[in-house]
Amino acid sequence: MAIAQGGTPYKRGKTFDTVDSLLIRSLFDEALTNGQSYSQLNYLCKVIGARITGSRQAKDALDWAQQEVAGYATDRVYRQTVEAEHWIRGDKQSVRLNGAVEILLKSCALGGSVSTDGPLRGQVIEVNGIEDLNNHNPGDFKGKIVFYNEPMDKKKINTFEAYGACVSQRYSGASEAAKYGAIGVLVRSLTTLTDDFAHTGSMGYNPEIRKVPAAAISTRDADALSQYIADNDTAIITMDFNCYTAKKPVMTYNLIAEITGSENPKQIIAFGAHIDSWDKGEGAHDDGAGTVQCMEVLRLFREVGIRPRNTIRMVLYMNEENGNRGGKTYARRAKLADESHLCAIESDRGGFSPRGFSIDATSDQIAHIASWESLLDQYGLHFFKKGYGGVDIGPLKIRENQVDSNLFLMGLYPDPQRYFDYHHSDDDVFENVNQRELELGGASIASMVYLVDKYWYSFVK
Amino acid sequence: MAIAQGGTPYKRGKTFDTVDSLLIRSLFDEALTNGQSYSQLNYLCKVIGARITGSRQAKDALDWAQQEVAGYATDRVYRQTVEAEHWIRGDKQSVRLNGAVEILLKSCALGGSVSTDGPLRGQVIEVNGIEDLNNHNPGDFKGKIVFYNEPMDKKKINTFEAYGACVSQRYSGASEAAKYGAIGVLVRSLTTLTDDFAHTGSMGYNPEIRKVPAAAISTRDADALSQYIADNDTAIITMDFNCYTAKKPVMTYNLIAEITGSENPKQIIAFGAHIDSWDKGEGAHDDGAGTVQCMEVLRLFREVGIRPRNTIRMVLYMNEENGNRGGKTYARRAKLADESHLCAIESDRGGFSPRGFSIDATSDQIAHIASWESLLDQYGLHFFKKGYGGVDIGPLKIRENQVDSNLFLMGLYPDPQRYFDYHHSDDDVFENVNQRELELGGASIASMVYLVDKYWYSFVK
Repeated sequence: MAIAQGGTPYKRGKTFDTVDSLLIRSLFDEALTNGQSYSQLNYLCKVIGARITGSRQAKDALDWAQQEVAGYATDRVYRQTVEAEHWIRGDKQSVRLNGAVEILLKSCALGGSVSTDGPLRGQVIEVNGIEDLNNHNPGDFKGKIVFYNEPMDKKKINTFEAYGACVSQRYSGASEAAKYGAIGVLVRSLTTLTDDFAHTGSMGYNPEIRKVPAAAISTRDADALSQYIADNDTAIITMDFNCYTAKKPVMTYNLIAEITGSENPKQIIAFGAHIDSWDKGEGAHDDGAGTVQCMEVLRLFREVGIRPRNTIRMVLYMNEENGNRGGKTYARRAKLADESHLCAIESDRGGFSPRGFSIDATSDQIAHIASWESLLDQYGLHFFKKGYGGVDIGPLKIRENQVDSNLFLMGLYPDPQRYFDYHHSDDDVFENVNQRELELGGASIASMVYLVDKYWYSFVK
Repeated sequence: MAIAQGGTPYKRGKTFDTVDSLLIRSLFDEALTNGQSYSQLNYLCKVIGARITGSRQAKDALDWAQQEVAGYATDRVYRQTVEAEHWIRGDKQSVRLNGAVEILLKSCALGGSVSTDGPLRGQVIEVNGIEDLNNHNPGDFKGKIVFYNEPMDKKKINTFEAYGACVSQRYSGASEAAKYGAIGVLVRSLTTLTDDFAHTGSMGYNPEIRKVPAAAISTRDADALSQYIADNDTAIITMDFNCYTAKKPVMTYNLIAEITGSENPKQIIAFGAHIDSWDKGEGAHDDGAGTVQCMEVLRLFREVGIRPRNTIRMVLYMNEENGNRGGKTYARRAKLADESHLCAIESDRGGFSPRGFSIDATSDQIAHIASWESLLDQYGLHFFKKGYGGVDIGPLKIRENQVDSNLFLMGLYPDPQRYFDYHHSDDDVFENVNQRELELGGASIASMVYLVDKYWYSFVK
């Protein structure tokens, strides 16, 4: 079905015609009956696998994605060079609790951590997050290993809020503890489950403080370790990790594919996801799902026969997980080229049943988007609320240290209950993604791109 | 937290006080932090297992549930006798495609099917559902085995609609085909997946037509069989099943547990689920999930300290899957005792992330319930629309062949994308239920019971 749009004037309206309704129906029908995203995700997870920045798999994923979208009658497919750090996990990875019997805890180094430089042994002091650390006697931590054990708050319906409330212990915990003389850090895995997976994630060092190694342990082992500390006078731990950051940065890429706008080609609607992942599991929900959904948007536009007025641009960002160099590079290059972005959309909350969009915009803009609910609610999309857009698109909204309030950001908001079960762990595998849920997400992004493209012109002129 | 409610007058209002907001928050907090439903489901699935009416496991499940809820400070726990048929799968179960090489298809008898009485061999004729059958030449089916291959429509966002649109081939397909002289029936499994599980389900016979055996085959094998038929002149199948219905009905029970209303004890708000399941898998989503959610509602009322004004009553129905004798008996007994039901709620769509309620009521009643969205939407509950209540509560709404429009029915409406992946198959197991999603469902039902109890009085007086 091809529907000509050329003749009708741009409008910013709260009313929609039958064409919108039919087109959106066609996008969902196509995704649910002939969708390619699920088989593409299968390939990305099972044939390519986990793809941390700098790895062979990350490069393979870019090559593969470029080939796939080249078949989608896009007008332009190209790579944007990204320079990024290359962190390597190494082959030594253990945390041992040295009690009467030695117990091996389920652990993994946090991404970005330095090596332990051989076995690192020390007494463990438990704290409930960074605030608790700072409330201790500063002398408590000298020569010790700090164990951050603040759990995610299960009461938060939006699990991302629970994550946001305690992720600082993982990201900044090492430097915060080293400030008091700690020699290493263990962090409770950030998941709402009690499970046996160590969930990794990024951490950063304060350049003015000595770098100490940091590792995650599974929530079940964190509970056990906490109990051990309560039951014994002292708990001694030996950490042994040989992870490191390569001396030279790697040259890698963002992958970009466009359909040129028929009327307003210089105005860009960007939508994207990150093609890199952690080196655990297969990066299925994070963010293989977003990657194949965004590829699917291009295919859906072609199959349904939508010719956009503005240029629509898919961006597969590299290095979201450990440095965000892809997102930052994209924003910098967009500014250098004086490109005009109308809107940027991101899918990076997993391939679960979509519920709507989290929107970083003015209340006027949000109200306008929310007015489309009557078209979208039959597909389960009802959430159109102020919130975070996404890590990769965030930098685009800052221009010369000012927020660009014309540009609005949206993050696809899927049901958030299961995301942290898998997040950054060996369990983030293809088998845990449901085909229909994944497909609905791709069609949801396509519908949103279609509506913004059709109804937003008057806002930016 | 105990909140006294005695002093305030009943009202039917669109406004709510802070107490409502706090109470509902407490229900969700308790469910998400100390919820019992997940560990109860674990027990029901892994220790007891599948529990078809008449089985030892069905009786064990009743005994166990009675013990569990007896600890919840309910005012009354009792059993209601239910007489039901006892269908037994037997130990022979095969469908073979007799080609150059014999191929064993993944199959299972449909619940209620008669035995094949030894191997039953015949040519297969494929039809696309009952309508297609009736459009054929009536002579086409004499002495043949009819293969119903109508797939579920993947385009339906609400998968229950897709199920409803083609379930007739499973329920009535045998008699419809036998009418034309067919000797047996194969039915494509009702799932949106292409998988290797045979999904069973109920079927019934027209008493005026000869009973022929009926079995489901997996969707992957249905596709393969269809291709085989297209590629070959004839396809010969041998079915061999020794399932049967016991000559004597079994005496079994519904389990009922109540908290007596403080002001209006004769007015009943019922909520329930079916404790029986098919004999495949563990009946985890169908309907172990609903069972433990309803048990949890009683516990939540106690823990949060809500004393209901009307009597709230949990009903765990027996025999929903193959006869619905539990639901019918409950309705009949309620009428005989002249009980007054304000509302009946059912949870039988799986333990997935709840989105709201499907409501069988007048538009006025639905508008009233939907006015509570502002209290419930922060928990992901936004769907309050006219729709089906549920199989077990349906009979309650019919009084002397008239619809009782005062009584309204509600079915918990969870996200429907994954339900038919597991439905009635060996894959409906505990591992496929997510803890948070399950727990949110129990809290959602408890919140709805609380609101109906507090705000509905004026409708019924």
